[in-house]
Formats: sequence, C-alpha cells, structure tokens
Amino acid sequence: MRYSQLFSKTKFEAPADADSINAQFLSQGGFIARQVAGVYNYLPLGLRVLVKIQKIIRDEMNALGAQEVLMPALTQLESYIQTGRQEIDVLFHLEGHGGKFVLNQSHEEVITPLVAQFAFSYRDFPVAVYQIQNKFRNEARARSGVLRGREFNMKDLYSFHANEEDLNAYYEKVQAAYHRIYARLGLGDITLLTYASGGSFSKYSHEFQTLCDIGEDTIYVCEKCKIGINKEIIDDQNACPKCDSKDLVQKKAIEVGNIFKLRTRFSTAFGFTYADEKGERKPVEMGCYGIGPSRVMGTLVEVFHDEKGIIWPESIAPFTAHIVTLGNQPEVLESANELYTQMQNLGVEVMIDDRDESTGKKLNDSDLIGIPWRVVVSARSLKNGGFEVKKRCEKDAKVVDAKTLITMIA
Amino acid sequence: MRYSQLFSKTKFEAPADADSINAQFLSQGGFIARQVAGVYNYLPLGLRVLVKIQKIIRDEMNALGAQEVLMPALTQLESYIQTGRQEIDVLFHLEGHGGKFVLNQSHEEVITPLVAQFAFSYRDFPVAVYQIQNKFRNEARARSGVLRGREFNMKDLYSFHANEEDLNAYYEKVQAAYHRIYARLGLGDITLLTYASGGSFSKYSHEFQTLCDIGEDTIYVCEKCKIGINKEIIDDQNACPKCDSKDLVQKKAIEVGNIFKLRTRFSTAFGFTYADEKGERKPVEMGCYGIGPSRVMGTLVEVFHDEKGIIWPESIAPFTAHIVTLGNQPEVLESANELYTQMQNLGVEVMIDDRDESTGKKLNDSDLIGIPWRVVVSARSLKNGGFEVKKRCEKDAKVVDAKTLITMIA
Repeated sequence: MRYSQLFSKTKFEAPADADSINAQFLSQGGFIARQVAGVYNYLPLGLRVLVKIQKIIRDEMNALGAQEVLMPALTQLESYIQTGRQEIDVLFHLEGHGGKFVLNQSHEEVITPLVAQFAFSYRDFPVAVYQIQNKFRNEARARSGVLRGREFNMKDLYSFHANEEDLNAYYEKVQAAYHRIYARLGLGDITLLTYASGGSFSKYSHEFQTLCDIGEDTIYVCEKCKIGINKEIIDDQNACPKCDSKDLVQKKAIEVGNIFKLRTRFSTAFGFTYADEKGERKPVEMGCYGIGPSRVMGTLVEVFHDEKGIIWPESIAPFTAHIVTLGNQPEVLESANELYTQMQNLGVEVMIDDRDESTGKKLNDSDLIGIPWRVVVSARSLKNGGFEVKKRCEKDAKVVDAKTLITMIA
Repeated sequence: MRYSQLFSKTKFEAPADADSINAQFLSQGGFIARQVAGVYNYLPLGLRVLVKIQKIIRDEMNALGAQEVLMPALTQLESYIQTGRQEIDVLFHLEGHGGKFVLNQSHEEVITPLVAQFAFSYRDFPVAVYQIQNKFRNEARARSGVLRGREFNMKDLYSFHANEEDLNAYYEKVQAAYHRIYARLGLGDITLLTYASGGSFSKYSHEFQTLCDIGEDTIYVCEKCKIGINKEIIDDQNACPKCDSKDLVQKKAIEVGNIFKLRTRFSTAFGFTYADEKGERKPVEMGCYGIGPSRVMGTLVEVFHDEKGIIWPESIAPFTAHIVTLGNQPEVLESANELYTQMQNLGVEVMIDDRDESTGKKLNDSDLIGIPWRVVVSARSLKNGGFEVKKRCEKDAKVVDAKTLITMIA
C-alpha cells in the first residue's frame, strides 16, 4: 500500500476524548475513529489488524473442528423472555414492524434453539459452532477505547454435549486452543488462565487475563503455576487451585477471554433434550467460549507500545515492512519503488510512505503506526550501501543491501 | 467437509413460512435458518456461499483502488437529524446510555463526516471507501427469504470527488466493475443496467436488475442494447437511453445493485468542503454504490434451480465436488475416502456424504444442496471402472477413473 494513497492518515494529536493508550494511539495512528462513546469505525489499517486477529482465532476454532456460522444481531425479545434474561441491563431494546426486538449481547438465545433444530439423538453430539460477529451492549460507561464498547467484535463458540464428561473434556480442549491463540497473538507469556465466578451455572468459570497495569480487573497470581484467581472469588478461593500455594501476587489485568460451562441452563429454557441410547430424553449440556477481536486489538496496544507509539507483534501487524523515503532525489524514489515492488512480488506485506513530508514527520508517523520493520531509503542510506533497516522494538538500525534486507524480513 | 459431521443437515420439508424458492431451498438445504421475519442465521454451507460472493465483490472493489473500512451499525440519532433523514420509515430507533441511537440502514451519515476528518485539499481527492457489513431496515413487510430482510449483508462503496467530472468518470468505472461482478457471479447475461429515479439528487440513478419472473420490479428492456428502464420512470423515459428505440419489452426483475450520484447532498449537510487550487472552499461531490451479498445469494437461487433444488454456479458454490457414497461395502468407503483425500490435497473444495442413509435420501440431498459436480461411489460404479460423475446442471452421468475425474473437476 502506498501511504500517500491511504485516505486515513495519522493525526497530529490524539482526540481530546481518548481516555486510554489504545484510544490515543489507535486514533492518532489512523487505525480507528470514534463514532460515539464505545462505538468505533475501523479504518483500513485497523481493519487489517482486526482481520488478522480474527484469522488466528478462526484457524484455532477450525482446528478444534468447530463449524462457523453467522447469527444475526436482531432477535425477537421473546427469546430472552424464555431464558429470563430480558432484564439484563446491557440489553438494547427496540421495536419495529414484526414486534419487539433486542440486539444480541451474546447468542445463547439464538444458538440453543438453532442447534436444537438439528440434533435429536445422542449420535448427533457433540456439536461445536462458532461465529465472529458484532455484539451490542448498552454499557453504562463505555471506556478505554476499544476495550469496553457498546458495539464490538466477538468470537463466540458454543458446544453441545450428551453428558457432563464430554463437556468437561471439550472444555479442556478449548482451554488449550485459547492458550495457542494468545501465544500466536504475542500475548502468551502474560495471559493467565484465571479462575472466576461461575455464576449460577458451576463453581467457577475461567477467564484469560492479560497482565497490564491499566487493566480493570484485579487478579491474584500464583507465579509458579501461572494461574490467576479473580478478586471476585478470592474470599472463597485463596490458594492456587493447582498447587494450593497461598503465595499469591496481586496484579492488574485485562480480561481477553472467558470460557464457561453453561451446563443445562439454556437447553432447559428451550426444552432442548435428546434421546439417549435407551431412548430416554436427557437435557443437553452446553459450554460457551468468548474472545473479542476488537478488545484483543486494544489490549495489544496497551501491552506493546512506547512513548512514541504502537509496537505491533509481527503476527497481527497491519504490514510487515514500512518503507520510508527521505528526500526527493530521483535515485531515492527509484530505489524505494523498486524495493517495494520486489517485496510485493515476494509476498511481503509492505507499506511505502512515499509522501513529500519532512524527515521528522515521516519517522514519527512510522513509530506511531508501529509496523515491525522500518526501512529508510535516503541519499545517505544509498551512499552507505543500501537501506537503513530497524526493527520497531529495537534501537539500532543498520544499512544493508536489498538481498540481505529481504532475507532478514521475508 | 464430511457431511456426517456437519451439524446443519437438510430437512425433509421446507418451513411452512418459506414464501419463495430461495427461502424454501436455502432453508431445506441447510444454508440458512430463519430467526424472525427478514432475519436469518447463516449455517456453515450458507456462510461459505456468502463469503464467496463477498470475496468476488471485495476483489473488484480493491481492483478499483477502493479502501476497505468497517463502520458500526450503532450511530447517534443526531447524525440523521443533521441530514434530515431521521424520519426515514425503515430506520430502527433505540435509546441507551449515551443518548438516542439508530441502526444504520445505509452509511452516508457515517462515512461523510469520517472522510471529512482526513480530506481537506483538492490534492486529497478522489477518495473511495467501502465496507461489507450488516444493515438494518425496519421493513413493513420482510419477504422473499433473503431478498428483502430487516438485517442483511451489504457492500457499500462511497466515493468523494473535487468536481462533477471526476465523479462522473469514477461512476463509469464502478459501473464496469459491477458488470464484472455479475459476470463472475454467473449472472452477467441476465443482469441489466437499468435507469431508475434519481430522487432529488440527479435525473437518474442506475440499478442492476436481474431478469427473474418472481422479481418485485418491473422494467422495460431494450433487448438490442441490453438496457432496462424501471417502470417508475417509464412515463418520463419511454425510449432506450442509448439507441432511442421505443421497442421495449416489459419484464420482471430483482434489483441486485444500485449506484447513485449523491452529488453534494450529504457533504453540504455535514459542511464537508475542500480548498481548491486557488484556496477557495468548494463542496465535495459524492457517489454511492451498493450491492447486497445476501440478496445476491437469494437471487442466485431464484435463477439457478430446478424442481429438485439449487444449481449453484461454480464460482460461488459452497463446494466444487460432492462425493456421495452408496452402500456400506468396505471397498466403497475406502475408495471414496481415498478420492476425498486426494481431492483435498489438490485443493479441490470437496464435501463427502459418508452417511449411512438410503440411496434415495442421499441423491435427493445432493440435488437439493446443488454442488456443481456430483461423484457417486458405489459397488456398481467401482465395478464399472471407478466413479459416476454428473454435473448438477446436466442430465447424464458417466463412469470414469480417478485420474480422469480429477482432470475434469480440478
């Protein structure tokens, strides 16, 4: 992509309402633009990051054998009355031709009767279905950029089982898949499986909490087992569930995923039973597993940045390489364009900043946008033998020729 | 994909509320499931088709140089008050923390101020931005399956220009891109550029109308020029705009796209001006260009079907080949599985129906689902030298060996 052609450029200042690092850098860098509190537009660079996060999650869901569907946001209020969740405070209500509707804040009310249309006998289980879709929550206070939104992107997986043992076994598999997702996102080391309240369904649910000083949540960490306990249950569970140690360290964290054994809470509400081997009706056991790509995007920025801007992990960066031309000499533009074409032909995702702007502006923008490899092309770099390459996460640059450069990056 | 593993199988009967061929076959075939009138779930097969339609459209938008973004559904009512569209009858209204909201039925109210944040000078134009996203319309009567929905998928492109000439030139380019899209969807021959009312913006807008007896629209066709005139303007325009012939044939058609010169209608409402070469402020000229992937999916079924089910064009079929095993003999299952693996390794998108069901049921399901190539594996086919292959759109099958089969399909 030619940055000169991109309509959504960096801004000199972050918007006054940016209440967090992610809101600040993502807005200023041209990744997102706020529509209204808690509701964002994804600009081309931001959409590229979002799609990459979605792709990693989709890969791991498919590897689990889960089947992708797409459910609607608009749903009849009756479905929520059936589960007794019509009073949930984050539910948006609306009326229209055809009756009273809500916007789904989660999709148990849709997926349960949907799967019930197709699964009747023990032979039809397990079933695992997921989607990547926008959720709507009427949050009293939207905040922290894309971390807590009123409209936000979500991957939600639902699993259906003939018995609790099968649910438990699948739940463990999803846990492992979640760990793989965070590892691929670059968050593996600092994202902890965390015990949290199970609500009325089961003793505990599990969250995935990414350690971060600005996190909304407080967790108690067993550093040996890399396991967290959410503050909300610390009175009931004051020791590591794995090693029983009470040597726990209080930390701040961002919840980046939540997995839940719903058991028969929703299947019962919708009368979703199946016939077992003896032909007896049994209630279906369910699990649900959420992870929000837009929230992950905000978390990545909260974790990976310095005072100048974002430092994207390579797996989800909008581009791998950022060619920056300095000066307008024909040989600079020519070499840069040649390198750009060469990289594109090799399948390297590359953006070229070919604008006629000052050195300071262009290097600042490059730091703000945070693409992993910066490649400066200038009269000086060419005189010194080629291209000045620097990783965004490192301090030192070096000048290398095109061949070496491509070996480094590709 | 193994059909035995797919949770969303065909149904014996179409739902009683299916009011059209597309609702009937898409529901019965396990592509979609109705949530509430005009609102559908996309099941795995249906989502595969939808994504393929989106991919063709995205390709052509990117080839135009348009930049993809993702705008929200939820938007402040104020934006619609600013354009005077707050009374549009299809607008869904809702209230929540943070004020009064609407769900976007189109995105002029979002994209115009968004692009205005980044484009200030004549040098910043033209700008072309698109998204593929769900729209919400409070239709008095949702009908015809996925043809007229209350929540539906839409690609909307918006272009911004410094002057009318540039808008006109770009408008022609988009027209050509739309023709390429319909050609790739298999609808090229029967989809006509059609003159329609321009509303208050310009004399005419243009629709793309696919000829189909169940279409809601009536158009008058110049068969020589392959151009249509929508009945709504036939009193003003009773001759072919290209050749002036009055030899027009009345036909029914489904609107599958709409392109519109908005001119300065929305830029004026949002005070979006730019500085021209002399530093003078000028209003920005705009165009908008819509095409609904979900509506296209319904149209394809209305056009391509027979009494047994859907006949998907290859470009957007959920799979290219459908292997159907008949009988449970070990050599049948083994040969079928070997072929399945072989095709997958060659990158052929293949589904295998490995269920233990009757011949009639399996062949009926195959016809209903409508995958382009059916490959029957049975004791008889093996005895006759291999696999019985038949195109969904043809009558005759023939038995060929694996190598010949793969050459035919891949």
